[in-house]
Amino acid sequence: MAAGTAPPSGTRDFLPEDVRRREYVIGIIKRVYEGYGYEPLETPAFENLETLLGKYGDEGNKLIFKILRRGEHEATGQADLALRYDLTVPLARVVAHHQAKLPRLFKRYQIQPVWRADRPAKGRFREFYQCDVDALGSPSPLVEAELCAAISDAMVKLGFSDFTIRLNHRQLLTAVLNSVGIAEELHGSALVAVDKLDKIGPEGVGVEMASRGIAAGAAASLLARFKQTAEGDTTPFQALDPHGTAAYANLASILALADGTSARGRIRLDASLARGLSYYTGAIMEVNVPDLAGSLGGGGRYDNLVGMFSGQQIPACGFSLGLERILVVMTDRGMFPPSLATTPADVMVATFDQSGAPHAVRLAGGLRAAGLRVLVYPDPDKIGKQIKYADGRGIPFVAILGDDELKAGTVTVKDLKAQAQQTYSQADAGAAILEALKRRG
Amino acid sequence: MAAGTAPPSGTRDFLPEDVRRREYVIGIIKRVYEGYGYEPLETPAFENLETLLGKYGDEGNKLIFKILRRGEHEATGQADLALRYDLTVPLARVVAHHQAKLPRLFKRYQIQPVWRADRPAKGRFREFYQCDVDALGSPSPLVEAELCAAISDAMVKLGFSDFTIRLNHRQLLTAVLNSVGIAEELHGSALVAVDKLDKIGPEGVGVEMASRGIAAGAAASLLARFKQTAEGDTTPFQALDPHGTAAYANLASILALADGTSARGRIRLDASLARGLSYYTGAIMEVNVPDLAGSLGGGGRYDNLVGMFSGQQIPACGFSLGLERILVVMTDRGMFPPSLATTPADVMVATFDQSGAPHAVRLAGGLRAAGLRVLVYPDPDKIGKQIKYADGRGIPFVAILGDDELKAGTVTVKDLKAQAQQTYSQADAGAAILEALKRRG
Repeated sequence: MAAGTAPPSGTRDFLPEDVRRREYVIGIIKRVYEGYGYEPLETPAFENLETLLGKYGDEGNKLIFKILRRGEHEATGQADLALRYDLTVPLARVVAHHQAKLPRLFKRYQIQPVWRADRPAKGRFREFYQCDVDALGSPSPLVEAELCAAISDAMVKLGFSDFTIRLNHRQLLTAVLNSVGIAEELHGSALVAVDKLDKIGPEGVGVEMASRGIAAGAAASLLARFKQTAEGDTTPFQALDPHGTAAYANLASILALADGTSARGRIRLDASLARGLSYYTGAIMEVNVPDLAGSLGGGGRYDNLVGMFSGQQIPACGFSLGLERILVVMTDRGMFPPSLATTPADVMVATFDQSGAPHAVRLAGGLRAAGLRVLVYPDPDKIGKQIKYADGRGIPFVAILGDDELKAGTVTVKDLKAQAQQTYSQADAGAAILEALKRRG
Repeated sequence: MAAGTAPPSGTRDFLPEDVRRREYVIGIIKRVYEGYGYEPLETPAFENLETLLGKYGDEGNKLIFKILRRGEHEATGQADLALRYDLTVPLARVVAHHQAKLPRLFKRYQIQPVWRADRPAKGRFREFYQCDVDALGSPSPLVEAELCAAISDAMVKLGFSDFTIRLNHRQLLTAVLNSVGIAEELHGSALVAVDKLDKIGPEGVGVEMASRGIAAGAAASLLARFKQTAEGDTTPFQALDPHGTAAYANLASILALADGTSARGRIRLDASLARGLSYYTGAIMEVNVPDLAGSLGGGGRYDNLVGMFSGQQIPACGFSLGLERILVVMTDRGMFPPSLATTPADVMVATFDQSGAPHAVRLAGGLRAAGLRVLVYPDPDKIGKQIKYADGRGIPFVAILGDDELKAGTVTVKDLKAQAQQTYSQADAGAAILEALKRRG
């Protein structure tokens, strides 16, 4: 690798094998989303800076990539645009802007990259893809249930069988914090600590809460209730304030509705789930697998975000799967089908001297018309070198047009794996190679 | 549309119908490229600023979107990154960087957005997609011929029958300029003028050449030769310097090789084709249709660009189709298949009260398993309102689970177009709807 030719820090070049794996995963997720009536949406890579500012909290603001003003304004050093930080805020803007054109109930998916100026680390990139799915226009718990079902279907189709969807509700969490006597002004601090439960454990969270001025007794009660509910004991949910009781009932409805889907048995009520983003207002969800710290994706209800753009509230709920994390786990576990390790072509046409090349090009056209992917070797190298190239690239067949073949209107097809060769009429070669590929599977 | 919710100047939101059209075109182009053994590559949206600077000429440099440094460096107003301006320079960087991993002959395609801070105008955007296809590692004219063939196949598969591929060669152009006595130091100026021939006609080019200090006699000779060659008279190519003669022979080889492909009869030698970008070194190409000023795409050979990154020259040649221009022409001409005007779903499942909703969700799962795209109406609205929603969205069937159906294990399927309805067992409904959709075509 030459110096100065690496992609920018935190970004990656995707070589053909990488792209094929990414497209395989995206294709499965997309087909599942389409099966639920979600429709595709795409938004620009950058937004006006003010569209993004103030939507992701102070931490988020710092991670936004800003674009310098252009022309005569460049020298001011000011930014007016910023790269997309997630797909949810652009969606809210789109819904506010195109409201007259969009249906009252709008279900959309969006699979595009986002950019965050995070410190790069293993599995953490500055450019990464989100696979978002959202429904706008309905407050029904059926929306959450179908989101869980769609996520579950996608996970199953990708080959996962050991995932869990954790489910909580922002107002249930608030009510539980109230029930152990944590004052409202400390809820924000408490949530930041709770959000780290996965990473630092209950003791760590206790220490963090103490440092944030939360009384040890309250913190201990809270952690005890989390433990109780995690073990399936719902007592802590029985004596909550009315908001908490309603939130618990909402989660019960979601669970009941999801019972007739592939999410059955995979959703786990988890009172400690906090989710970082500030725009959530109702149910919140996260999907996890045992061998990955952190989640493969998450989401929730955000009934106030569209109103920040249009002044008119539109109920909304969504889920985002993280493509890179799914790829990390699938790669570690070897979950990609062998057929994905594709070669650049099904057959290579060898070329000889300049007089033979037009025939090679013509033959290639015929083979393509038969449905084959065909690479024509462009240079008049020795036939041994050409075959070595095909073999090195995993191309299974080489078509050879020598003088004899040209005279007879035939082509000799070498099967590199079987180390055999056969001569066909040029018209029949395509079908014969296709047949051989099918037999091979 | 609310104020402040529009996408940034020169960019667009793609609503579902837009995305479907874009994906239709991309899908066709991609399958054609794959058929030729080109493999997919993707690069980051931004590059280190120095990677892009100095590659596109002074005009290009001004149009690069620059990204502000982050954190403590933000206040300096300096940029360190820049949005991708085309897909060719990133490709050259990738080839220099990953050379050890890449095959000696590397054929790649890349379909991604690029960004240019051009003044927005009809059909000119600041974010637009390029569909690039390049072959690296061979100087053979077979590379150019196959590029022309692939572009031609893609155009034909998209439904175009009236396109032309204009072909020229940088060194042929130089030799023709020499042959009419234009001094080498004026070639750059002359090319800028020649590049405008499409837009301002021969008289305009004559005026522009005069203003650039090119003698009237030389300009007139040049234009006369262009006219001659455009009419198929090859005399002006017969008496050129050795570079020009070699370039002409190269074009003749490309034409001969392309004769056995769908590009046959569509390639036109055009001595006046200049192409703007400065990195071209050999053959240059452009694809045009009569009803669009400007081209649908273009490309050429650039044997020195990889060397700017790796120090090692690698011969390279490529072509880039512009997605937005193709879409403009296809939309104007109505070239999209009617099946693309898809609805969000094949069938909508209506929901009644809360007790019926779990049954609706379960039925939807069964219909999806049968291969249907199914939208579950989430809210317990009156059935008339629900059916109106389905009809308004063009969803052809509505599945209704009333009390009677639930008792009997059946479902009533309303065909909104035929204004008819039929009751099926829940197990059979999916197959019946699929069958009806197929009959409808």
